[in-house]
Amino acid sequence: VRYSFGCELHYTVREPTPFLLNVEVAHLAGHRDLREELVITPDLERRSYVVPGTENRQVAILAPAGELTIRYSGAVDVDTHSEDPSGIGEMPIAKLPLEVMPFLLPSRFVQSDLLYAFAQREFGYLERGHGRVTAICNWICGNFNYWHGSSNPQTTAVDTLIARAGVCRDFAHLAMAFCRALKIPARMVSAYAYGLQPSDFHAVFEAYLGGRWYLFDATRQAALDGIVRIGAGRDAADVAFAAFFGQVDPGPIEVWIEAEGRDSNAPRTTDAVSVSTG
Amino acid sequence: VRYSFGCELHYTVREPTPFLLNVEVAHLAGHRDLREELVITPDLERRSYVVPGTENRQVAILAPAGELTIRYSGAVDVDTHSEDPSGIGEMPIAKLPLEVMPFLLPSRFVQSDLLYAFAQREFGYLERGHGRVTAICNWICGNFNYWHGSSNPQTTAVDTLIARAGVCRDFAHLAMAFCRALKIPARMVSAYAYGLQPSDFHAVFEAYLGGRWYLFDATRQAALDGIVRIGAGRDAADVAFAAFFGQVDPGPIEVWIEAEGRDSNAPRTTDAVSVSTG
Amino acid sequence: VRYSFGCELHYTVREPTPFLLNVEVAHLAGHRDLREELVITPDLERRSYVVPGTENRQVAILAPAGELTIRYSGAVDVDTHSEDPSGIGEMPIAKLPLEVMPFLLPSRFVQSDLLYAFAQREFGYLERGHGRVTAICNWICGNFNYWHGSSNPQTTAVDTLIARAGVCRDFAHLAMAFCRALKIPARMVSAYAYGLQPSDFHAVFEAYLGGRWYLFDATRQAALDGIVRIGAGRDAADVAFAAFFGQVDPGPIEVWIEAEGRDSNAPRTTDAVSVSTG
Amino acid sequence: VRYSFGCELHYTVREPTPFLLNVEVAHLAGHRDLREELVITPDLERRSYVVPGTENRQVAILAPAGELTIRYSGAVDVDTHSEDPSGIGEMPIAKLPLEVMPFLLPSRFVQSDLLYAFAQREFGYLERGHGRVTAICNWICGNFNYWHGSSNPQTTAVDTLIARAGVCRDFAHLAMAFCRALKIPARMVSAYAYGLQPSDFHAVFEAYLGGRWYLFDATRQAALDGIVRIGAGRDAADVAFAAFFGQVDPGPIEVWIEAEGRDSNAPRTTDAVSVSTG
Repeated sequence: VRYSFGCELHYTVREPTPFLLNVEVAHLAGHRDLREELVITPDLERRSYVVPGTENRQVAILAPAGELTIRYSGAVDVDTHSEDPSGIGEMPIAKLPLEVMPFLLPSRFVQSDLLYAFAQREFGYLERGHGRVTAICNWICGNFNYWHGSSNPQTTAVDTLIARAGVCRDFAHLAMAFCRALKIPARMVSAYAYGLQPSDFHAVFEAYLGGRWYLFDATRQAALDGIVRIGAGRDAADVAFAAFFGQVDPGPIEVWIEAEGRDSNAPRTTDAVSVSTG
Repeated sequence: VRYSFGCELHYTVREPTPFLLNVEVAHLAGHRDLREELVITPDLERRSYVVPGTENRQVAILAPAGELTIRYSGAVDVDTHSEDPSGIGEMPIAKLPLEVMPFLLPSRFVQSDLLYAFAQREFGYLERGHGRVTAICNWICGNFNYWHGSSNPQTTAVDTLIARAGVCRDFAHLAMAFCRALKIPARMVSAYAYGLQPSDFHAVFEAYLGGRWYLFDATRQAALDGIVRIGAGRDAADVAFAAFFGQVDPGPIEVWIEAEGRDSNAPRTTDAVSVSTG
Repeated sequence: VRYSFGCELHYTVREPTPFLLNVEVAHLAGHRDLREELVITPDLERRSYVVPGTENRQVAILAPAGELTIRYSGAVDVDTHSEDPSGIGEMPIAKLPLEVMPFLLPSRFVQSDLLYAFAQREFGYLERGHGRVTAICNWICGNFNYWHGSSNPQTTAVDTLIARAGVCRDFAHLAMAFCRALKIPARMVSAYAYGLQPSDFHAVFEAYLGGRWYLFDATRQAALDGIVRIGAGRDAADVAFAAFFGQVDPGPIEVWIEAEGRDSNAPRTTDAVSVSTG
Repeated sequence: VRYSFGCELHYTVREPTPFLLNVEVAHLAGHRDLREELVITPDLERRSYVVPGTENRQVAILAPAGELTIRYSGAVDVDTHSEDPSGIGEMPIAKLPLEVMPFLLPSRFVQSDLLYAFAQREFGYLERGHGRVTAICNWICGNFNYWHGSSNPQTTAVDTLIARAGVCRDFAHLAMAFCRALKIPARMVSAYAYGLQPSDFHAVFEAYLGGRWYLFDATRQAALDGIVRIGAGRDAADVAFAAFFGQVDPGPIEVWIEAEGRDSNAPRTTDAVSVSTG
């Protein structure tokens, strides 16, 4: 399916301020025929960078005082790998590729090291595999309040567990914390997400199962086969769409995504979904 | 039933040190014919005090450097009020006696203000009354590890919830946090507890329901009708059996309780149990 | 000096809701010739209560759905005890009145048990006495941001220490935490505070030194000899001016205080100030 | 200077258990003529890996039940770059290499995002440059207790700040948190450290200043020009010398380092020290 997507960000910059942007979609094998345009107004010198060990594309600019607009738009064919989830198992640690191991570690917002007993008590008895991660998502989706304003940029997985409330980043952080505590590698994915209402940047996550990274959305907001990836990382700290280091007043944000030849009323897939990163 | 009970505490005191002891059983209407003896070796001047609004009996001493032994022993008839729990409801806040209201407040180790949504999600749908507090105890008892060494004196109800492990004080703190979050007054009770194996000071709690304080034990270790109360308070900070303010090496602690004419093999009561404090 | 003071609170009550009010000034020996009026509109049945071991006057009402206005106004002569602070020492714990001992304990928002080493490192080397508590206040006042919106009702002394920012309740909590960690009893005081700009309910604290409770204000906002006490307690949880238990929309709050025959331009006292509670 | 170093680790493995080891010294330009041997007993199949974007060398094994011994020994010439610290400034963010930017992010044990105001208040007024990071180290070294047993593997920079105590990992975490909060990139370094008494694995950190990563040790235990690097990462989670995933009883650990032709009594350098990673 071919997706058209984009975002427009506005800032009032009070002093010369470095920005680090991560709004461009990742260069993946599963992202074919990518066409895109990043327009920065005023036109500024850009430094581009792909974070080693990831496909995250960063653009750094130094914005002068004044109005700043960042407009990114593109289109891409997304090839997803879909599969019956019942056949997908967890991998023994000894068989994990070594580059996957860091996604077992705790991170700033994903304190999996504090949640071993909790994860074991709630999910330890379940059959191992894709269905166990789905059970984690179901538990969060069914027992937590999805409320804008219930969290802030410092909110961690443990905070979310106590508060029983959060937004997409918080739901992903908590689900990832349970996965890592159960020795399932998990990483955060920022994306343009088809089906998300209202449209916005979205945060979902991937768990490494049966030799692939499979997508999950603990909020049940987006279609898993309509995720157009921007970045992947340990947690929200790694995949901020825009970081700035100075006096800046953020203005309105607009995000959009459309699909060609996709029936928006069709029921969502219950398949296991993966996007080739190779 | 008449209980004989006591404790013996040993300390090596390195410098003149004030101690605040709370090992004597409370003067309650339900504690009849109390006989007791508190022997402090060496024999020291004592200041005695009953904390206002409680029946907690404190003894303050100034211990000189050297060995210190505190031996308390006594006997008392405990009159318990037993009742079918199914008829005991929760009270509307507007009907609560005002002296009970402080036990709705959060306290050092019982951060009920952080757990409103959690309590509501787990226990909000249950029928209100004694059975709901029992459900809270069952959930903790069934889902948490009762492990010595899993907590320390700074551990809070929130810590316990995350760690899914604790000792008697922690189980009581968490149960009380859920009660207060649900607008059920709850207070901690320290006690000599018949049936506790191995014998030790015990921490249970009371919830205010249907016009009385009813006893609960989220650890399911002790017999509720065999609780000989020492103190009651907001949390562990209020009912420490011994606090000291200087260089002291704590030595062995011995605690005992026996019951006259009680069959130790009889099944434990499932009645709602209350002790008259009037 | 004779003070006139009061407050007017507005609420839109969505369902019958119990309120617990603590806006009336305390009945203290140092509060002479108190005249006051509490008008509740609509006129509701009141239950009154003085919390044992305190002089806090609570009024409970059950408000029906609709508009609720609480207006309290009064006048009182405040007799303060003023003294050269240089002669006021700290008291050895063994000499403390037993009713003062609970104010050495940690509480919900004052985790003094976590700050022993911090307090010792920052203030342990200072000469013991009134000046040491002043040094604590100076350190907070000089090194923290006094910002509305920097905290919320769950913010603790430890949070404040990390954030280096807070409002009056937070400054008081942190100062009290250091005091208790240094074995100086400390309690929170809510008050009508002469000199506070803009006028509002104020939170200060008292430390027990040389046999009296002395007032301190880590925010340096109010005149210490112009504090008209409402309540005293372990922390903000004990002295909320209004707690309610239902769907309520808080409206505007107005608080005022004026002094007869006091020169508002006179420099503030640097004396140690105490109000007799006897 | 040529250093000889090594470690010997013993484990009793209770079930087949994957281990991830990071004890080999990094392949750096400044590490010349490295000779080394890693002996695993029993002899096991090894998977080797260099974490992308780092020089951290990981070895994965699957240990069978039984005794496991890991012995690593080697020798290397360390070329350090030494410089007068007074001339080394901080870099504007807009000039930072993009691969350095992730070391401005908060991480599991380094919650720099919570410490902006604290860092600004304590260190914001200091002249920017190498000396400011030294001032951070001095403040921690001078005001914190270096105590074994004062922390555990879950302890964070914020916990350390509150407790005013820690071990080498904690001192490094806190110093890094302040650096990142001040917009100075900082990363953790695990090392064989000449001069550390008693010998052990050591944790120090690097700050990115004037176009280089400069070494700092907030514990003041090791000689900065005697650091033989094993790994670098965001925090302790990234540079554990051994992680295992199964029932294992850790046995004794031995770590050693010696220097050829270095006078162990010579005063330590006060130069700024950097090791070329290019």
